[in-house]
Amino acid sequence: MANTLYLPELREMLAENNAAELREFCTALHPARTAEFMEGLTAEESWAVLQHADMPLRVEIFGYFEDERKIEIVEKAPREEIVPLVAEMPADDRVDLLADVELEVVQELMPLLPAEERRDIQRLSRYAESTAGALMTSDFARLSENWAVSRAIDEIRVQAEDLETIYYLYVVDDEDHLRGLISFRQLLSAMGKPETKIGDLMERDLVTVNAQDDREEVARKVADYDLLAIPVVDDEYRLVGIITHDDVIDVMREEAEEDAYRMAGVAPLDEGYLKTHLLLLTWKRGIWLTILFFGAMLTAVTLNRYMNQYQDYLNSLKWVMLFIPLVISTGGNSGNQSATLIITALSTGSITLKDWWRVVWREVLMGVLLGGALGMVGFGCGAILIHPFSFYAAATIPITLMLVVVCGTLTGSLLPLLFHRLGLDPALMSNAFVAGLIDVVGINIYMWIIVAMDIHPG
Amino acid sequence: MANTLYLPELREMLAENNAAELREFCTALHPARTAEFMEGLTAEESWAVLQHADMPLRVEIFGYFEDERKIEIVEKAPREEIVPLVAEMPADDRVDLLADVELEVVQELMPLLPAEERRDIQRLSRYAESTAGALMTSDFARLSENWAVSRAIDEIRVQAEDLETIYYLYVVDDEDHLRGLISFRQLLSAMGKPETKIGDLMERDLVTVNAQDDREEVARKVADYDLLAIPVVDDEYRLVGIITHDDVIDVMREEAEEDAYRMAGVAPLDEGYLKTHLLLLTWKRGIWLTILFFGAMLTAVTLNRYMNQYQDYLNSLKWVMLFIPLVISTGGNSGNQSATLIITALSTGSITLKDWWRVVWREVLMGVLLGGALGMVGFGCGAILIHPFSFYAAATIPITLMLVVVCGTLTGSLLPLLFHRLGLDPALMSNAFVAGLIDVVGINIYMWIIVAMDIHPG
Repeated sequence: MANTLYLPELREMLAENNAAELREFCTALHPARTAEFMEGLTAEESWAVLQHADMPLRVEIFGYFEDERKIEIVEKAPREEIVPLVAEMPADDRVDLLADVELEVVQELMPLLPAEERRDIQRLSRYAESTAGALMTSDFARLSENWAVSRAIDEIRVQAEDLETIYYLYVVDDEDHLRGLISFRQLLSAMGKPETKIGDLMERDLVTVNAQDDREEVARKVADYDLLAIPVVDDEYRLVGIITHDDVIDVMREEAEEDAYRMAGVAPLDEGYLKTHLLLLTWKRGIWLTILFFGAMLTAVTLNRYMNQYQDYLNSLKWVMLFIPLVISTGGNSGNQSATLIITALSTGSITLKDWWRVVWREVLMGVLLGGALGMVGFGCGAILIHPFSFYAAATIPITLMLVVVCGTLTGSLLPLLFHRLGLDPALMSNAFVAGLIDVVGINIYMWIIVAMDIHPG
Repeated sequence: MANTLYLPELREMLAENNAAELREFCTALHPARTAEFMEGLTAEESWAVLQHADMPLRVEIFGYFEDERKIEIVEKAPREEIVPLVAEMPADDRVDLLADVELEVVQELMPLLPAEERRDIQRLSRYAESTAGALMTSDFARLSENWAVSRAIDEIRVQAEDLETIYYLYVVDDEDHLRGLISFRQLLSAMGKPETKIGDLMERDLVTVNAQDDREEVARKVADYDLLAIPVVDDEYRLVGIITHDDVIDVMREEAEEDAYRMAGVAPLDEGYLKTHLLLLTWKRGIWLTILFFGAMLTAVTLNRYMNQYQDYLNSLKWVMLFIPLVISTGGNSGNQSATLIITALSTGSITLKDWWRVVWREVLMGVLLGGALGMVGFGCGAILIHPFSFYAAATIPITLMLVVVCGTLTGSLLPLLFHRLGLDPALMSNAFVAGLIDVVGINIYMWIIVAMDIHPG
């Protein structure tokens, strides 16, 4: 929701071209809030307001605009106004933004940018979207091992405003190979001995990611090691960028959302719920619903086959139909639970593929326990609903439930492991898909057991 | 999995009491990795190894141990050895740890701690578990507005090693009311004019949380405003603590896991998948499976009621049973999708309760579109599976699907909104629960339509 509180005043200031007040508006609040208050303005109006902020602040407020607005501004604003802003943007955000702007506009902007920024954009845009390379920024501080503490502090002070973070400082050799890390806090503690060499203070055992690593790997390392930023290296261990905590938080938020959507069978959304067009959202749900629909049709076809083959027998057992929903939903639920447990455990790293045997063993055991317990309740329910009651008829329910739950836990745990093994996202093994699969298996088990028991109604 | 690579060497060093090599082991690696390599040792052994690290490093490595091990060490190590470590621990971690240690041990330790730490523990342990207060630490830097830049830098330098972060510095008045914030980067940029007053540099529009706020609110603000740390204030706007980015990352990870579990009907786990005892895990799944089982039994009872009431009529329509799985799973799937979309949108703040009318309207529209499309496919499937074919019989499938999908989207969206309105976690409205509810509704719709159509088999 746009915050409309300041809109009338802002429009009035713009109409009057009241520079002093517009400037005051830009500087008074946290840049994120300033951006929030401008949400109700058109792109043109917000760009006009931004002209009253100094460049560093202008870049900051612009950074908090929604993606659509940023794109609109870059595409519509006069080239000579937009180029300095693009040149000053953080390197990682800039690449992401330009990737979404119309190609024509990018081609017009690129020659107008300073050579260094141009090369930077070309370098960063080489990496695939979900890799560490695509997340990293090149605005980081490089130190040399031979520098003294005093020189390092002076260098950082000069660059402080242009760097993404000054709190972790990376030490590289002449060919940019990563040698070590020193935190600003360490540097500060060493100010008492300004002649100490960086090489004597720095940490040499670093946690790094490769530029090709998946962004989930980045998030896991930053979370596990409580880092403020993580260095990104290439295959020769040259430092090519850093990824800061705020980008990691964004990744975690996006990944959690994506996983939730996938598990429920919704193709991930690029925008918020209310911002996604109704037809697009319908489509993203519809594909999965249709796939699952055909899964359910398979169940129907299976049922049909049994019905035709054992027509008279099944028709004589009126209660068979009653337990179909029970068999299906119990199998699906136990499968969902296993799939969610395994997908979550894989993504937090609390299990790896090497544990597959232990996982399967645990799931089978749990399946037996859960299936056994539910089976006992199921026998009771069977006794109530099956008329005329027969022990053999009621016994089909617990046997079916036991087998269905074991199949559910097994399928729910093996499929995500298999997907992981194949290098695919285990969350693609959506719960709905697991449930659909178990429906078919469950119906087959149920029918097979009823046929095998050869029950003759009282 | 414990990393067993160094275990034999470590045990040998301990047996020989080889101080030099043990010291080297403690200092050579990142503390998180040192802790990892010690996972295979017993608590006693790892405590013995830790004695060879200086106190700040010892605290750091200890901080990366698993919770169980920390508790075991605190409970078992000699009091005079453990007290200095507890005194040096970050204030927030310390409170969390002591909350899990046996009460007797805590009562023995408390009088041995310095008075300041003791008061700190008492203050921090006042807050309920999921609040900002329970996450915050009290180790932060306080500045006064009247200080000059040079004095501020000197003060920070002295305290640097004891503070949780030195990168955000909070400005308070004599009664601890929060007045402003200055980043270390700003301080550094201002070093050229060392006489400048902090009050002239600091930012006054701050993003804060109240100590009673939910930790999800904390995570949302830190993520939205790209913060390194967020100040926690009490109702009088007195600064009582700060929460740093690493704690926020942990919260996000835990919340995402919890939501995933809840949606699949598993009570949240305190430990990783493999570490949770099989019986505990079975129990956490079993409660939900049983609840859902009785949901499915409701469906069976409903079916039974219709079967008894319209016995001859339903028995004459052999195909009715075939489409039960289809009706149930399509309703459940569409409900799951809606529930996931709404729960995610609520937790990321992209919708609020005020939007409920728009949400319901969108969901009904999507339900009509999805139900309509699936209904057409369903009519085709009906034409194939219904023998003898009749238009009226096949028409029951699309009509049922349309109504079931609309009910699914409606239930899936309204229940999380309702739970949110009641102040409960919308993720409690687990997908499995929504699906169970829609099963009963779906069967009722299906039977009702078949009865209402009064089809006479060819």
